[in-house]
Amino acid sequence: MRKRLFLFIVLAVVLGGGRMVAQELTMEDVSLALDMIWLVFAASLVFLMQAGFAMVETGLTRAKNAGNIIMKNLMDFSVGALAYWAVGWAFMYGAPGAGGFIGLNGFGLAYDQAGLEAYGVGTMSEIYRDWFFQVVFAATAATIVSGAMAERTKFTGYLLYSVVISAVIYPISGHWIWGGGWLAGLGFHDFAGSTVVHSVGAWSAMVGAILLGARRGKYVTVNGQVTVKAIPGHNLPIAALGVFILWFGWYGFNAGSTLSGSDPDIAWVATTTTLAAGSGAILAMLTSWVWFGKPEPTFSMNGALAGLVGITAGTWVIGPFGAVVVGAIAGVLVVASVEFFDKVLHIDDPVGAISVHGVCGAWGTLAVGIFGDLAKIDSGLARGGQIGVQLLGIVAVFAWVVVTALVLFGILKAARVLRVEPKDELLGLDLSEHGSEAYSGFQIFSNM
Amino acid sequence: MRKRLFLFIVLAVVLGGGRMVAQELTMEDVSLALDMIWLVFAASLVFLMQAGFAMVETGLTRAKNAGNIIMKNLMDFSVGALAYWAVGWAFMYGAPGAGGFIGLNGFGLAYDQAGLEAYGVGTMSEIYRDWFFQVVFAATAATIVSGAMAERTKFTGYLLYSVVISAVIYPISGHWIWGGGWLAGLGFHDFAGSTVVHSVGAWSAMVGAILLGARRGKYVTVNGQVTVKAIPGHNLPIAALGVFILWFGWYGFNAGSTLSGSDPDIAWVATTTTLAAGSGAILAMLTSWVWFGKPEPTFSMNGALAGLVGITAGTWVIGPFGAVVVGAIAGVLVVASVEFFDKVLHIDDPVGAISVHGVCGAWGTLAVGIFGDLAKIDSGLARGGQIGVQLLGIVAVFAWVVVTALVLFGILKAARVLRVEPKDELLGLDLSEHGSEAYSGFQIFSNM
Amino acid sequence: MRKRLFLFIVLAVVLGGGRMVAQELTMEDVSLALDMIWLVFAASLVFLMQAGFAMVETGLTRAKNAGNIIMKNLMDFSVGALAYWAVGWAFMYGAPGAGGFIGLNGFGLAYDQAGLEAYGVGTMSEIYRDWFFQVVFAATAATIVSGAMAERTKFTGYLLYSVVISAVIYPISGHWIWGGGWLAGLGFHDFAGSTVVHSVGAWSAMVGAILLGARRGKYVTVNGQVTVKAIPGHNLPIAALGVFILWFGWYGFNAGSTLSGSDPDIAWVATTTTLAAGSGAILAMLTSWVWFGKPEPTFSMNGALAGLVGITAGTWVIGPFGAVVVGAIAGVLVVASVEFFDKVLHIDDPVGAISVHGVCGAWGTLAVGIFGDLAKIDSGLARGGQIGVQLLGIVAVFAWVVVTALVLFGILKAARVLRVEPKDELLGLDLSEHGSEAYSGFQIFSNM
Repeated sequence: MRKRLFLFIVLAVVLGGGRMVAQELTMEDVSLALDMIWLVFAASLVFLMQAGFAMVETGLTRAKNAGNIIMKNLMDFSVGALAYWAVGWAFMYGAPGAGGFIGLNGFGLAYDQAGLEAYGVGTMSEIYRDWFFQVVFAATAATIVSGAMAERTKFTGYLLYSVVISAVIYPISGHWIWGGGWLAGLGFHDFAGSTVVHSVGAWSAMVGAILLGARRGKYVTVNGQVTVKAIPGHNLPIAALGVFILWFGWYGFNAGSTLSGSDPDIAWVATTTTLAAGSGAILAMLTSWVWFGKPEPTFSMNGALAGLVGITAGTWVIGPFGAVVVGAIAGVLVVASVEFFDKVLHIDDPVGAISVHGVCGAWGTLAVGIFGDLAKIDSGLARGGQIGVQLLGIVAVFAWVVVTALVLFGILKAARVLRVEPKDELLGLDLSEHGSEAYSGFQIFSNM
Repeated sequence: MRKRLFLFIVLAVVLGGGRMVAQELTMEDVSLALDMIWLVFAASLVFLMQAGFAMVETGLTRAKNAGNIIMKNLMDFSVGALAYWAVGWAFMYGAPGAGGFIGLNGFGLAYDQAGLEAYGVGTMSEIYRDWFFQVVFAATAATIVSGAMAERTKFTGYLLYSVVISAVIYPISGHWIWGGGWLAGLGFHDFAGSTVVHSVGAWSAMVGAILLGARRGKYVTVNGQVTVKAIPGHNLPIAALGVFILWFGWYGFNAGSTLSGSDPDIAWVATTTTLAAGSGAILAMLTSWVWFGKPEPTFSMNGALAGLVGITAGTWVIGPFGAVVVGAIAGVLVVASVEFFDKVLHIDDPVGAISVHGVCGAWGTLAVGIFGDLAKIDSGLARGGQIGVQLLGIVAVFAWVVVTALVLFGILKAARVLRVEPKDELLGLDLSEHGSEAYSGFQIFSNM
Repeated sequence: MRKRLFLFIVLAVVLGGGRMVAQELTMEDVSLALDMIWLVFAASLVFLMQAGFAMVETGLTRAKNAGNIIMKNLMDFSVGALAYWAVGWAFMYGAPGAGGFIGLNGFGLAYDQAGLEAYGVGTMSEIYRDWFFQVVFAATAATIVSGAMAERTKFTGYLLYSVVISAVIYPISGHWIWGGGWLAGLGFHDFAGSTVVHSVGAWSAMVGAILLGARRGKYVTVNGQVTVKAIPGHNLPIAALGVFILWFGWYGFNAGSTLSGSDPDIAWVATTTTLAAGSGAILAMLTSWVWFGKPEPTFSMNGALAGLVGITAGTWVIGPFGAVVVGAIAGVLVVASVEFFDKVLHIDDPVGAISVHGVCGAWGTLAVGIFGDLAKIDSGLARGGQIGVQLLGIVAVFAWVVVTALVLFGILKAARVLRVEPKDELLGLDLSEHGSEAYSGFQIFSNM
């Protein structure tokens, strides 16, 4: 290509009398180029969120499982990308079939002219562009699960699960909302995926965490009284790095969801995203300060993420002030929810993924109905109706994910590939599952 | 949105006979879209610099304070963003009042038509675009302070300080230069913020470090003789990662400061930024090699940052060769300055922030007058006059920041929220301020 | 600039009756702006790969050498950028001289009008744009070497070597292919640098590793029998972070190599890059699982990189299915190759750089001939001919690099600046070469 360009230039210089003659672009070319640059930029940022999730999860768990966690995060993207290419994309963005329940063409990105027209584009370039932007979203949903199931899941089971969520569970509910399916038809609005992406990952994670059971030593029953032990993470700086990387990636995640490089609302989205993240972090910090006596780093970091998840659905239809409010409520909610799942329900979620992505995802989806500019949503619904449809979508996706995840994790559990042996959990998954240590040479004390 | 797009496409396909009919863009739309994409891209990179600062500061200090440091870095952006939204932006970019001293409209990003016209744009989209680009600069100024005050500052005091710098101190001197204020009127040129951003952060940091006093054990007086102890950082690899992330972010910081996606000088700026960073790193390495006998990693890393800070003011008006020279001088200067503040003045700056951002920021601002292309600066001044105005700006901003920071930190000190108790400093701020450890499970020796 | 913009706006508002009158762009301006934004975005991502390489190399080696490794990675970019500015760019993209062997103008980016015309552009802006995009590629080639020579190379020798590869070795073979030289003339196709960048780095690394010899304790001979010891890395999480950052950067590396922001194939490239990386990681994981009994993290990470290196040459001419195949083969190949170099040839390559970048780079270059769309390559060759030319290019570059690297490293070895003293190697290069520790305060056990 570089060579071809060079020869082209030489030719052009000769023909053009010493000045390069650039091939004139049409306005349609420019429009497509703006969309292409914008979406590839945004998708690249969303890709980097994989690093963010990996660092957050690694940092908030124990050193003896760090290698397993980075393996999970690396491989869920890898198997997820191939699964989403082979079938997931087709289920999600194929021409709607079966009453808006599932898409059914574009497997392996194979398109004929009719397929392109049905999708609504003129060229395969636009298919690749949209696939690249969507595959990183699919991978985000998949990787959210990892955190809640950390430190005790068999690697084989995790791989199998990742294929199924990327290929089937995520794409089908995604089709309902972003693929022109039945929820879209009712006027449900989820701009960048509080429900489509985050809740799908989180409800799967919840089912997985329940079926797995808690990490050994996490809930100790003595005389019928359950004592809840904290299992601190081993590396807060890389967890914080992960949060910053996620926040960075979220500008691709949310602002990229304009899907158009010439949408004047790109910066609106970036602004509301910034403000909700900030207010989420502040309120989570203050809540932890009041509740536990000190401003707690893990809650504060999760507060930023909670604000981000919370604004994701409404980032394009909620203004700056609304974004501050949505983020603030998410920040309080995430602390309360983490405590509730841990202390009351005794569901062991090492990184708080269920609360951050599930509870705050639902909150953000609902907030669209409460704070959203109805004219922009353009669903034809009054506020009450919009709130109702948002609730319906939250419940429908919850039900879909819980049922399919129960089936999936149930099978994996029955096949004995869900949870590692107690001795392996004690030893650490790095050695038992992968035969390697994450921090060779360092003196590390095993806690529990 | 995705749904709306889908419906639009379906409609378009019907109307257009099977080919998508894109709404035709005008050339003004394209121009705005280029600016939007460019500035959101650039601002996202600058946002990531928060991660860079966090990693540099964490890596260059002790393990027992790592959690506190990441909390400071997370929260200064969070409170800073809300403060800059509520008032900072209005003070900085509001229509000039009071003789070019302060801007006074746009609080909470509230604009009427007259406000938009006074700012010079036609739509709120452009306000959001510019706010997003500017808020990450404000946050950079705020976070620079953190490093110099590391390992001994009370978290409460730090939060209060961060609000004030983001809301008041930074925006007001920023207004003088970038908001159309009095220094701008005199022809002062600071393209991307050697003075506006970096010096403001650094001079605040200097005042803070002086009022705080040194970390315990840093300067030990025996028989009237002061012995200076080195307190090595606990994690050079993440500090280096931070430097690479900062350098990466600087392409957004400097090249983004063209403010226009169709400015042909974008790559000029990227080129001079690259060369100055490289020569800064090389010269700092060589200086440390000659001075201390070995090529020292911390100085070399700070040398890259010194080169970057140094070229920031003049990146658009200084050519490649000049950039190499500016960076090289910054590289030597940063080593000498760190030694001077430490060994002579006994001001304890754990990461060298005062030297990197203050001294090299001043040097870079002055270098504009010495090496800058006067035709491009377009101030109407001769070289001597330009140098004089650059000096005036350096001094004026120094005076503004020193005075306001003295008042601010003085109040915080009097209110006893500036410095932690000696026993807490010994224990580490992670446990005393946040009740958590950064590296749970690792065997760590407390030094001092 | 910000000031100037402000004044311009004020003026425009006055002249335009209250609405900003943007200077109308021509379609040529837009085309140039799209290219500029795209290439600066892409180049910034490629720059960040420096952080990725630094983290991978640091993480996969021992704690006692971590500071040395980050110094090498910081300084090879710094000296490399200045060398590529001073002479490397001219050798690579100067007007071809000497039968297409070397370019000979543009030293220090000095161009007259004839020089611009010979390069094929109209303005210096385009030169800066292309230089910025190319300098980060040159630095990638240089930094690849670092990993294979880790933990035993003298810092002085490393610096000297970095200058020579960035200034001479890389640019000259680069000229043959991307600078319009003799291999380009024969129809050799390497879209983004499997050979131009990765193999050049890797073959240099191989020569360096051979001349250096293995790390002490790596190959122990007892009674004529060589025992191969594994020397595990000290920080898998940051190595994994490095892999994610590299993958992220590769979207700039490959998709940016369209060199045009209006190329509709940008997302094609991003898609094939994603799929090859994913299949590389999966197959390397499976291969290690079958071969060693467990899914091994280091091999899996190298598998992702192997897939990326493998698709780099053909990313624009190979479709999604072909990309999966190319990546899969690279994933198997990298495991076999690492084992072969280690267990059979006893060449000590701590991070597997020779296999990842050299062997898989050669495979990717060959794959262009096997799977590439010949119409797109447009070399006029039949498939057999294309395969032949690809092989010729692989061999020619191998020969060029091996010979020049032998001379270079031979001189450094003779001058005793290649390898550190045994006692320094035992102590660790952080203390011996730089007088500092990477992890001050942590209890670390030296292994070997």
